This record gives sequence, structure tokens and C-alpha cells, in this order.
Amino acid sequence: MNRSRRHLLTAIGAGAVGLAGAAAAQEAVAPPPDPTAPEDATKVLGGAGGPTAERAAWESPSLTPGKVTGPSYSPLQDFVGTITPTDLQFQRHHGGIAIIDPSRYQLLVHGRVRDPLTLSLADLKRFPPTTRVHFLECAGNGRNGYRDPKPDTTVQIIDGLTANLEWTGVLLKTVLAEVGVQPDARWLVAEGGDASVLARSIPIEKALDDAMLVYAANGEPLRPAYGYPVRLLVPGWEANLNIKWLRRLELTDVALQAKDETAKYADALPGDRVRQFSFVMDAKSTLTSPTFPTRLTGPGWWPITGLAWSGRGRIARVDVSTDGGATWTEAELQGEPLPKAHVRFRHAWNWDGGPAVLMSRATDETGYVQPTVQAFRAARGLGADYHFNAIRAWRVHPDGAVTFVPPAELT
Amino acid sequence: MNRSRRHLLTAIGAGAVGLAGAAAAQEAVAPPPDPTAPEDATKVLGGAGGPTAERAAWESPSLTPGKVTGPSYSPLQDFVGTITPTDLQFQRHHGGIAIIDPSRYQLLVHGRVRDPLTLSLADLKRFPPTTRVHFLECAGNGRNGYRDPKPDTTVQIIDGLTANLEWTGVLLKTVLAEVGVQPDARWLVAEGGDASVLARSIPIEKALDDAMLVYAANGEPLRPAYGYPVRLLVPGWEANLNIKWLRRLELTDVALQAKDETAKYADALPGDRVRQFSFVMDAKSTLTSPTFPTRLTGPGWWPITGLAWSGRGRIARVDVSTDGGATWTEAELQGEPLPKAHVRFRHAWNWDGGPAVLMSRATDETGYVQPTVQAFRAARGLGADYHFNAIRAWRVHPDGAVTFVPPAELT
Repeated sequence: MNRSRRHLLTAIGAGAVGLAGAAAAQEAVAPPPDPTAPEDATKVLGGAGGPTAERAAWESPSLTPGKVTGPSYSPLQDFVGTITPTDLQFQRHHGGIAIIDPSRYQLLVHGRVRDPLTLSLADLKRFPPTTRVHFLECAGNGRNGYRDPKPDTTVQIIDGLTANLEWTGVLLKTVLAEVGVQPDARWLVAEGGDASVLARSIPIEKALDDAMLVYAANGEPLRPAYGYPVRLLVPGWEANLNIKWLRRLELTDVALQAKDETAKYADALPGDRVRQFSFVMDAKSTLTSPTFPTRLTGPGWWPITGLAWSGRGRIARVDVSTDGGATWTEAELQGEPLPKAHVRFRHAWNWDGGPAVLMSRATDETGYVQPTVQAFRAARGLGADYHFNAIRAWRVHPDGAVTFVPPAELT
Repeated sequence: MNRSRRHLLTAIGAGAVGLAGAAAAQEAVAPPPDPTAPEDATKVLGGAGGPTAERAAWESPSLTPGKVTGPSYSPLQDFVGTITPTDLQFQRHHGGIAIIDPSRYQLLVHGRVRDPLTLSLADLKRFPPTTRVHFLECAGNGRNGYRDPKPDTTVQIIDGLTANLEWTGVLLKTVLAEVGVQPDARWLVAEGGDASVLARSIPIEKALDDAMLVYAANGEPLRPAYGYPVRLLVPGWEANLNIKWLRRLELTDVALQAKDETAKYADALPGDRVRQFSFVMDAKSTLTSPTFPTRLTGPGWWPITGLAWSGRGRIARVDVSTDGGATWTEAELQGEPLPKAHVRFRHAWNWDGGPAVLMSRATDETGYVQPTVQAFRAARGLGADYHFNAIRAWRVHPDGAVTFVPPAELT
């Protein structure tokens, strides 16, 4: 053990890690009900697998408690890579999780079309399928980091309403070509088959661009919480539009002005103006580690990592600051960034043991740069309720504790 | 039982769910038999989500029964896209699933090195991490489609020993740079911490190329069945080398000549020769749909789809034949093919209702073309036991039934 520690110092370029190894190990593992393992696993025959492979007893990543109406947040701090584990995507329900029998599922496509159509799930699966990786993000994601957050807020609570999966389904334009969109159709109204009958209006241009009718995520059928058997996917636009348990698509000449595009998902701006139909999720990044309640066990090299995404296309670069935005260094992006998808960024940081403020700043391929919280506040006001993409900050204290920095402290 | 059902009613927020709720409750816990859904889900308040999202009661993709020593096959026919669901990767154990306490995990790196090293899991996680998508494939995958298969064999049984996930860990060369490889080191011997203490030899060039020490897959920690907390990843090479529950890496001047590189994972060839250290998985494709027991319900457009991969790099193209190889059409690849990763191919086929034989043929970026079964048999003989990458064939009967075509019928 001594030997291993000595070497790690060299490995991570640190001078004096001390208890680092042991303490970091503890922190990496959050055991549930006291799991046990054989003293020497080579001396004990292991068991056979079951029909599916379970998680290790030492690993229990969880959503925050589920709600019939409201959000449950995804444990971003527990993830590595870019793909969100299928069963740990955030949830936001308006009337609970609808249970739909796939053999009775029907999707009506009608309105200003040449030939209205009703599709079964089997019908839909005979259209040419498409597979793409895209993020989803609730328009309200980040609210908990904007309005008077406490320093002991986790990244799960601040930014846990986003996910990134490999979706499979049919491009909506393929189905719309089948029904024949009338020239006066300007909007697509999508309606869910849950108890809230959630409906939203989507401009026809987006419907004919990259929107999809998806029936699978990460290789398998959608799960009920995410709209089984079919949901709408509107890549890069606020998640509320991505109607789950999709039952109806109506082509119209005007927007529906539904509750969720007037009373909700619209923002009062400074000067008695209102921002409505603010569909696109602008470029954003968020640190996932180190964040509260992580405690760095001592000076030396620590990986800074997080996720970045943009509703307008690919992430072009992510910069990281360890001095509260005074200076920035370009982070390494993991793999080729995909359009409208999470990309993982990393930066190796040699902590000197002094106080530090960690930030990340995304730039997308359109040249859009994630704004400072000061710029965000000037544009959107203190009452903003959606689309919080300002730069987030985490303070590293001399004792290694990491806490969130409330925006009010960044003025 | 009553109590749990009543509980479930509350859980799914139902006022008047009737029997639907109770049934749905049962499934959420234990799989189907006969799931039900409300007649109209818009009239019934749905339930809140749990700490993780369960599969729909109508969907129960499963591995074949697990074995302490032997394979369990992955349900390829149930997957779409390219990412393999984390809990449905194939398994192949030699002494069952080892249970390792992550806080006690240690990896020894020694042998012909300057500075031997022992790493804890926390140590390993402080090295710069890397995220990449790669396939894994058992060297024996395809055996069940080569040796006298029956027409009613499924693609799960024929080719279900392959998977494709987003892996995160540390490049092995980063750790090897730390220990300082001696000039006379020619092989890396990797040893698992399971009851079989499975060990394999890997040429140093591969170890210093793209091999990884991985601790996560599809965004989350490895599951015990797949080597928790750390396995070796040897991209594009036979899965047996990708040692699970990795506990020791030894740099040596000669190969170990372990059981799994002499008695097993070596092939007798025609003419009293033996193929040993046949590491690379050559280019291959396999249809996942339509395959037995799918039955096409009538003439018309049907999607033909499957997976293709190569251990030598990217897939360049996949061709599909519907007439038993007489003519070929280039299939559409979904997304940009990644090196040493599955890619999904698709072809829209207009079935005229007559008999047809479906085939797919992969070509990789090196120009290597997946061989016919005749060419494969000539080169490898009837006794071949590994690396079965010949073109597979599925027969579509006039009644729409689809069956596997045994290689003997393709001469």
C-alpha cells in the first residue's frame, strides 16, 4: 500500500497525497445495506447470471423521489461518459406515468393534410428507421441553481433534468410525406395520451427537419416513464415539447396556445415583455465533478469533468477556469461531438491547496458562448423561470470541500 | 399481496384503476404473464416514478439461462440502434460471477517494468479518463450457426455473444508509462480475480495501442457480471482477452501459454496445422430482423436490418442480398461507423411474396470482405471452433415464415 501510494504520487504528479488514496476510495463508494464480498473471490465459485445483469450492491445511483406532477432529477454526479443510463433519465410528469398497451396503441395524424392516417405501433415500425444520439433537457433545468441556491446543493438538483441517449424511430417528415401536408399548415400540434393530455405546438419547419417518432432508446423499447410505446423527439428543443405517450398529431395554421405555452414555458422579461415559444436550448455546460459533496483529499492532480451540449448543433469547445473566470483553459472533449448531444469534457487540474472557483464555459459551432450569470441576469431578470444556461461556479475550499457558488456571489 | 396491490394503486395514483393497476403492479415487480392497461389512459391518473425506471410489462428481453461456466446469449432480435442495453450484454463465465468489494480492490502491475505498482480503484480514477464505444465478441460466437444448426435457430443463439457499449476508463498505455516498460517486455499477461483466475497473454504492441482499463459502461459502473470494478478492454480482439475482475498485469518476455490460449481459443486447421493467438475478430455482419421466429404478414415493404463490425477498424459498407447472394445492394449505415464498434445497417425490401434468401455482407476499411460460408469452410475446415464470420443466410417462405439456412445447404 505504501508502495502504491508512492507511485500514485508520480502517476498523478502530486507531491504529497498522504491519505488521499484511502479517503478517495471511501468517497467513490456509497454502500447501501452493508454489502459483503468474499475475502478472496478466487477461492469461492461465483454464481451464474440471471435473465438481466444487476448493478453491484455498492452502486445505487437513483433519481430523486418520483412525483405524479413534477420532476425527478438524474444523478449526473454518478455518471461518466456521455450516454445516460436508460433507467436513470430524469422524469417530469404532468399526470403520472401512463400505462399503454402496445397492441392497442394508435397514433392519429390529421388536420391540414391530404390523407389523415392512423398508425399502429407495428405500422410505425415498418417505416424506415433512424438511429441518432440526442440530448433532452427540461426548460426549467438550472432553476435550482439560479434562485437563491444553498452552497450545499448538488449538481443532481441543479442540472439533473437533462439526459443523452441513442434514440431509434422514424423521422417525422417520413410520416408527414405519407399524409401530405397542406400548403397552409404552419404548426404541428402534438398531444399525449396521459392523464394530463399534454399538448404543444411545434413550427412545421422543425417538424419537417429532424423531429422523430421514437420507440426505442439505448437499443431497447422506451420505458413507460419515458412515453412507451412512442414519444415525439424534437432534437435540441425544450423537453416539454417531446410529448410522451404520443397519440395525436394535428397539422394546423395557428399555434394551439396550450397551457404549457402560455401559463408555463413562457418567461416574463424585464420591461413587461414575455418570451414565448423559446424552444431552443442554448449552449450550456455543467461540471459533474468535483461538485458538492465531494471532498478533495489533498493537493495534487484532480480530474475536472462535466457535460456540454447545444440545441443549435455541435459543441465547438469548452473552456475551464479554476480562478472564478479570470483565466480560462481549453478542456479536452471526449470523442467527436455530435449535433444536439452531450459531449464529455475533461481537464486535468493540479490543485495547489488554496481556495479556487471552478467554472466551465461552452461554445457551440454557431459561435454562441455560454453567458456569465451577470449577462444572463441583465437579459432575463431575476424572475426568469426557464432556460438557465449561465455559467455555473463551484468553490473549492482549502480543506478540500466543494460547494456551489450562488449567482448572487458572482456579481 | 392485497396490501401490495392496494399500495400499488396509490403508487400509480389511481382513483379507479380497477384491475389494471393491480396487474401493472405485479409486473413492475415480477415480469409479465398477462399485463393490462387502462382502457383509456387519459382518464386515469398515472403513478409516480421510482428510484429507477422499469421496463414496460410487455417487454421482457432476456439473456438465455446463466451458467457458472459457459455462455448466456444476448437477445439481438430485441435490440434496435447500436448501443447494447447495459443489463443485456452477453455473459461468458469460467467460474461464475466474482463479487469484489470496490474499497478492497487492488490491481498489481509488475514484471518487466521499472517500478511495479499497486493501484486502488480510487487511484485508477485519478488518471485521465477516456470514453470510447467498442464492441466485444466471444471468439466462439457463430458456432451455433456453423455446426449443423436447425432452421428454427434464433439470431440470439447464433450470434448473441456480441455487445457494443460506451466504455470509460484509463488507457493502459498511461498506466504502463507510469511503471516503465522494460525493453525486453514482449507480452502483457492479464489475470482475473474470479474463481477461474482466467489469464491471457496480449502482445505488448496492442497493450500500448488502444487497450483500456475500464470501470464504467454506458455511463455507469461496470456490473458484477461484466468484471466490476475493473476489466481489461482489448478493442476488436476476442472477448476472452478482455479479462474481468482484473487483478494483475504482468509484463513478460514470453506468452503464458495459458489453458485459454492452447487447449481453448486455438483452432485445428485442415492439414494438421493449428491457429493460435488468433486475436482479431474479422469483419462480420448479422441480420437481426427478419429472423426466426418472425413471420412477415404479407408482401410489401419490410425493413431488413442488422449489425456489422470489424476488429480491424471501421465498417466501410454492408451489402444485402435477397436472392441468396446472386445480386447485392448496398445497405444504409446508420450514423458514422466508429472504429471497432457495431454499426446498424438497414435496407428497405419490397417483398413480392415469393421465396427469398436474405444475406448481409460486411466490408471493413481495410478492404476485407466477409467471406462466403464456402470460402470459410475451405480455409478453416469443418472442425473450426472459433471466429465464425462467414455470411449468414435466412430463408423467407411464401407463407412469411423466416428460418435459418444451415451452411450445408449453401454449397
